Amino acid sequence: MVSVNELGLDLFEELVENADLFNVAYHELDNGSRVVDCGVSVPGGYGAGDYFTRICMGGLGDIAFRQGMVGQFPMTFIDVNTDFPAISCLGSQKAGWTVKLDNFFAMGSGPARALSLQPKHTYEVIGYEDDSDAAVICLEADRLPSGAVMEMIAEKCKVDVANVCALVAPTSSIVGSIQVAGRCVETAVYKLNELGFDTTKIIAAAGTAPIPPVRGAKLAMGVTNDATIYHGQINLTMNAPEIVDYLEKIPSCSSNGYGKPFNEIFKEAGYDFYKIDKSLFSPAEVIINEVSTGKVYQVGKVDTAVTLKSFGLA
Amino acid sequence: MVSVNELGLDLFEELVENADLFNVAYHELDNGSRVVDCGVSVPGGYGAGDYFTRICMGGLGDIAFRQGMVGQFPMTFIDVNTDFPAISCLGSQKAGWTVKLDNFFAMGSGPARALSLQPKHTYEVIGYEDDSDAAVICLEADRLPSGAVMEMIAEKCKVDVANVCALVAPTSSIVGSIQVAGRCVETAVYKLNELGFDTTKIIAAAGTAPIPPVRGAKLAMGVTNDATIYHGQINLTMNAPEIVDYLEKIPSCSSNGYGKPFNEIFKEAGYDFYKIDKSLFSPAEVIINEVSTGKVYQVGKVDTAVTLKSFGLA
Amino acid sequence: MVSVNELGLDLFEELVENADLFNVAYHELDNGSRVVDCGVSVPGGYGAGDYFTRICMGGLGDIAFRQGMVGQFPMTFIDVNTDFPAISCLGSQKAGWTVKLDNFFAMGSGPARALSLQPKHTYEVIGYEDDSDAAVICLEADRLPSGAVMEMIAEKCKVDVANVCALVAPTSSIVGSIQVAGRCVETAVYKLNELGFDTTKIIAAAGTAPIPPVRGAKLAMGVTNDATIYHGQINLTMNAPEIVDYLEKIPSCSSNGYGKPFNEIFKEAGYDFYKIDKSLFSPAEVIINEVSTGKVYQVGKVDTAVTLKSFGLA
Repeated sequence: MVSVNELGLDLFEELVENADLFNVAYHELDNGSRVVDCGVSVPGGYGAGDYFTRICMGGLGDIAFRQGMVGQFPMTFIDVNTDFPAISCLGSQKAGWTVKLDNFFAMGSGPARALSLQPKHTYEVIGYEDDSDAAVICLEADRLPSGAVMEMIAEKCKVDVANVCALVAPTSSIVGSIQVAGRCVETAVYKLNELGFDTTKIIAAAGTAPIPPVRGAKLAMGVTNDATIYHGQINLTMNAPEIVDYLEKIPSCSSNGYGKPFNEIFKEAGYDFYKIDKSLFSPAEVIINEVSTGKVYQVGKVDTAVTLKSFGLA
Repeated sequence: MVSVNELGLDLFEELVENADLFNVAYHELDNGSRVVDCGVSVPGGYGAGDYFTRICMGGLGDIAFRQGMVGQFPMTFIDVNTDFPAISCLGSQKAGWTVKLDNFFAMGSGPARALSLQPKHTYEVIGYEDDSDAAVICLEADRLPSGAVMEMIAEKCKVDVANVCALVAPTSSIVGSIQVAGRCVETAVYKLNELGFDTTKIIAAAGTAPIPPVRGAKLAMGVTNDATIYHGQINLTMNAPEIVDYLEKIPSCSSNGYGKPFNEIFKEAGYDFYKIDKSLFSPAEVIINEVSTGKVYQVGKVDTAVTLKSFGLA
Repeated sequence: MVSVNELGLDLFEELVENADLFNVAYHELDNGSRVVDCGVSVPGGYGAGDYFTRICMGGLGDIAFRQGMVGQFPMTFIDVNTDFPAISCLGSQKAGWTVKLDNFFAMGSGPARALSLQPKHTYEVIGYEDDSDAAVICLEADRLPSGAVMEMIAEKCKVDVANVCALVAPTSSIVGSIQVAGRCVETAVYKLNELGFDTTKIIAAAGTAPIPPVRGAKLAMGVTNDATIYHGQINLTMNAPEIVDYLEKIPSCSSNGYGKPFNEIFKEAGYDFYKIDKSLFSPAEVIINEVSTGKVYQVGKVDTAVTLKSFGLA
């Protein structure tokens, strides 16, 4: 079985070695753990966003930047594809680990989750666990983790702290915008898993979302998620005729609240995250090729107007 | 002169070394020949399709996956470009070798053809022959070749059987869909060659086709060819003012039968392949830049409706 | 600080080593300097255009070819992105050095400019100078440089002549078309610099332009520039709220003469280059994300009709 941490580590080492070419900053902490700042005190950029996203997918996804259009506006898109949808998206990329210690808070994702089994249920469902001496974690956070935070990660992953590698980028940064848009395929796989579908039957997945603009800490979560919710387009190839029973529930338009920028929904919910319909976190449009029947299904639709409103372009 | 087999071998070795990252299966046969299964008993995927296509072009073409639209439907496209159109498309990628032994049948393509000279006429016309100890062949087949099949290939290529490398993918598989769509540029070069045009005058070529869905063994040949016949778009740069005499005959719309999915044409022909107008196997639309006159020509058109019908989306 | 010459040299060495795969010709001159012909006596192609463009950007930009549409016509586009807009575009890619000796004339660009400081003002403004033993220069010219030309470059760059590396391509060649279209992002950065904006505040930049057809020496300068002037689309991410004062002046449509192919404007100016409004050399459309305010601005527009007229397609 492939090791998402070993693959992620190779990419991490490349990034560290070429830190000056990627506008990132490398820090070795006193306890030997290693941190690459991709946007807290440095600008980052497309190159760092490329590495962050691929590491987040455990080295099992390819990405490319592409110029495209959101309505009449030219934007840069991220195209993502993976031949290991369940492992790379659910077993690694999913932001399933809340890393919290004292005043440090981060959404944790990436290969390390396959060691700490955060959450354990996910790994049982997809039948994957990693076996690696090194743990590579991606932190969506506004500050860098302390040595104590890295210690906690090491403990949960059962590795030596000197073997813990972290990438950090705020939601409101270029790398933040890229890596969240880079989750477009993940949201489709995640949604299907939430619906009880066996995602290991997805053979291959590809998709795209526009890279959202950087609009500041207050708006960032909404704007970055809207890129996928209102403009994410995904192709899934699977061997699972039972998919017909899930089709209608996959796209974002099947959720309550759909139809306005996330930040408006959030405001209407009194900024109470738990009042928001979680099924909103889905791609706008999904094409499914079921290979045993040879059928092709289309569900959902992009909403250019809401996307542009969220992006500050309308 | 570049060697398509040496370049193909380098890519083959990379694929073998990382078989677990590409969902392919590597087999070394008793006679020392090597086979990589890209879709018979394994799922394959985008990564394997990338390697299959580039090996098929003898390492002389670049490919990229890109998210795009077929009408209102988001699909994944393959973009192809080559600076050696005659050698890579006709001397390697063209499916010009029917590999048949006992109950094994495959459409053979790839570098090995430049050693076995299948067919010899092609190599005389483009003035290319390879000189290599190793033979790399791409087999579009529903099963893996036996040692005897590999022996036969070795004999025709005049190499030691231990130096024969084969990639195998059924037409009805992800890699099958990718590698046939990956022939979009080849069909333009092939058509021009069939019309008697000297394809060595094409300096560079680029193009794209949507990756067709996997629709089962019965429909696969039609669906995969329709991707190029009804939605292939090609750019050719050439030094050949005589191209004006060939323009009208290049695109698929100049053939009899054009206008419905290949499988319907095939049915109407009583499933007799030899009753089908071979000029159908062409791209939908071609742009030609003739550099000595500085002229730019456009012929043909995409037919989104037929493409979607073939893909099961209309 | 990164060295554009060291990064460019690595790419140059790769190109030399694989000259036969890129349809380029390598020459070592008597004085030890090295020249790669990318289109004077050889065809070149997409691969050589890729290297030429990336070397021109001092190894600090990524490029990709992509199939897209100019109106109803399928064309190949070049997508460019860089995380070092000021250094790669102004410090390297800008054609700021007129290399002239006896009957040799070339527009000089690329890393070597950061050693010869051509022009010095640019390097003061962006605060960059390179320190390298090797000088890598890109020459847009119809013939190869002599040893004496290479000597002159060595002197201006204060390096040994044996350490001077030159790439050469005529404007009217495939590589010429690619590398000029590859300047689409540069024109945006260049224009802002000309307007007195501090381009070091641009964090990241991405954009695209169609690769113009090869239309002959007489038309080449106009056709290649029109690709960006009428169809270049750029995204800039910056930390500079003062950008609001520059917005209107950025796109090409703000210049006199805008609205017809460059060659017509040139003709009307009596072929006197100095009578042409220099502000024309800008991209058609620019999207700007100002991160400190979270605002997103759009200026300019593509003009498909003029682009197609220039390209010989209307």
